[in-house]
Amino acid sequence: MAGEFELIGRHFNWPAPQGYLGVGDDCALVPVTAGHRLAVTTDLLVEGRHFFPDVDPEALGHKALAVNVSDLGAMGARPLGCVLGLSLPRVDDDWLEAFARGFRAMSEISGCPLVGGDTTRSVDGVVISVTAMGEVPMEGALRRSAARNGDDIWVTGELGGAHVALELLQGLHRGHEGLLDQLRPSLERPLPPVAFGSALAGHAHAAIDISDGLLQDLNHILKASHCAAEVDYSALPVHPALQGLEPQILQRAVLNGGDVYQLCFTAAPNARDHISRLAEQHGVAACIVGRIREGVGIRVMHSPLPVGQGDYIGYDHFR
Amino acid sequence: MAGEFELIGRHFNWPAPQGYLGVGDDCALVPVTAGHRLAVTTDLLVEGRHFFPDVDPEALGHKALAVNVSDLGAMGARPLGCVLGLSLPRVDDDWLEAFARGFRAMSEISGCPLVGGDTTRSVDGVVISVTAMGEVPMEGALRRSAARNGDDIWVTGELGGAHVALELLQGLHRGHEGLLDQLRPSLERPLPPVAFGSALAGHAHAAIDISDGLLQDLNHILKASHCAAEVDYSALPVHPALQGLEPQILQRAVLNGGDVYQLCFTAAPNARDHISRLAEQHGVAACIVGRIREGVGIRVMHSPLPVGQGDYIGYDHFR
Repeated sequence: MAGEFELIGRHFNWPAPQGYLGVGDDCALVPVTAGHRLAVTTDLLVEGRHFFPDVDPEALGHKALAVNVSDLGAMGARPLGCVLGLSLPRVDDDWLEAFARGFRAMSEISGCPLVGGDTTRSVDGVVISVTAMGEVPMEGALRRSAARNGDDIWVTGELGGAHVALELLQGLHRGHEGLLDQLRPSLERPLPPVAFGSALAGHAHAAIDISDGLLQDLNHILKASHCAAEVDYSALPVHPALQGLEPQILQRAVLNGGDVYQLCFTAAPNARDHISRLAEQHGVAACIVGRIREGVGIRVMHSPLPVGQGDYIGYDHFR
Repeated sequence: MAGEFELIGRHFNWPAPQGYLGVGDDCALVPVTAGHRLAVTTDLLVEGRHFFPDVDPEALGHKALAVNVSDLGAMGARPLGCVLGLSLPRVDDDWLEAFARGFRAMSEISGCPLVGGDTTRSVDGVVISVTAMGEVPMEGALRRSAARNGDDIWVTGELGGAHVALELLQGLHRGHEGLLDQLRPSLERPLPPVAFGSALAGHAHAAIDISDGLLQDLNHILKASHCAAEVDYSALPVHPALQGLEPQILQRAVLNGGDVYQLCFTAAPNARDHISRLAEQHGVAACIVGRIREGVGIRVMHSPLPVGQGDYIGYDHFR
């Protein structure tokens, strides 16, 4: 952890929690509960690729951490802390202050304190690296490979909002521009259900966070668990502002829209009541949208338009 | 942990150790020993700032991890694992293969398995983010603030080699070009004494890894511990290839040369025998170079040229 952090550190100068050692030594120190395993995830965000130079820095700070704690929740892990790498072409105090405010808000919402970092000057453009750490009971992790035949398939939150917001920002869907104000929070301020995810550890089986689109992410579970799925389109939680859209735009946003940062998970039918209670306790909307079956692939029922394999596999990840 | 890792994953497709969950889920899972705390450190390396486009990719892979595990050792932590973020302008198989080979070699040398990552396309230039995690007994961490009046000051390895190698690569020191072959490993393949550092936990007091230069890094300990130091220049372990250099070049390299990734630590005089035995067991050269005193600042004795405060403070970290 290089000393460069000190200069910019005034923007990230939040006290470390009790039992932690924060910024200022060779490493941060973080307590881990006995009988738990460390869960760790990392993301690298590059200006011009993952965000544009004119992005609202507060939203960027929020989202940079949100996408990582989303992965913790999808593993059933409780956040322990995060480290931030920030490479900047120049020191812009207003930008940094806003970025730090957004990052801190997400840190507090998700209970994931910033414990360390590295800041350096970039040649050109902002680069953000976030690594988030959590803990999960030794046998409770929600692994992608844990879905079982007969499991319910659950989805939290609402689908499609972030996808349509991005398309509107790109100038698509003329006549629907008025939607952007309602959809922008879905894209820019995702609120992953992290505490709910960690409460599911030991109760749900498999889980994943929806970052690339429901079908594609569900398919990751199916491949890892060697099973198939039936999804009832009419049961999917569609963002309410999308109801007036043309069917093909809507269906694509709901089934394939990414950047959702909500959970898709599977659980035994006899866990329904317990999971519904957990969702209520955490203020999370969770609904059953399908079932795990033997076999291969995803069968979508009751969709306005047919769904084929091309809708969820064969996507080029290196973009 | 985004799916983009899969494409490039073939270059980093090493089995995770027993008890771990590696690449392929939302998070990696890592065991942590009860009674220990997690130590975590992160670095962000940017092409054109921290390394040049024509750098040997194998050396870059080695060093990217070395600088992070060096921080673990300086905290007294035993490595548990690391995550790698890699942003590349294009997929160059030969480059990736060499980078991965260097990274893997360092991973094996230091016992720090790669457990996850995120790979993405950059707009321009390579960006590398490494976060390394380790564990340290609850009360054993080698914090910068733990030096005590009367402690011995120890240094491992050799000083000055990396600094002069960098200057030679920059075209300085005409007439000494023949030195480069002997010094290049110090710059490009640092071997931080990580296992020795973790063995020091509970035996030494304060420690830091020498990345910005001995005096500057020792001064971090002194500031955090509110004490002063006497350093005996004649006791410093100078890289043997440097002996023929002019005194002012040599002294600057030894006292202020960075990129060393060896340890400077303090310990009570009654721990000398134990520490010497530990060093021998780990094949590490460790010698006493001074003493912690009450007061402020660093007094360097027996140096060819005078040393002032300007030699170790007031450095601009944001470069």
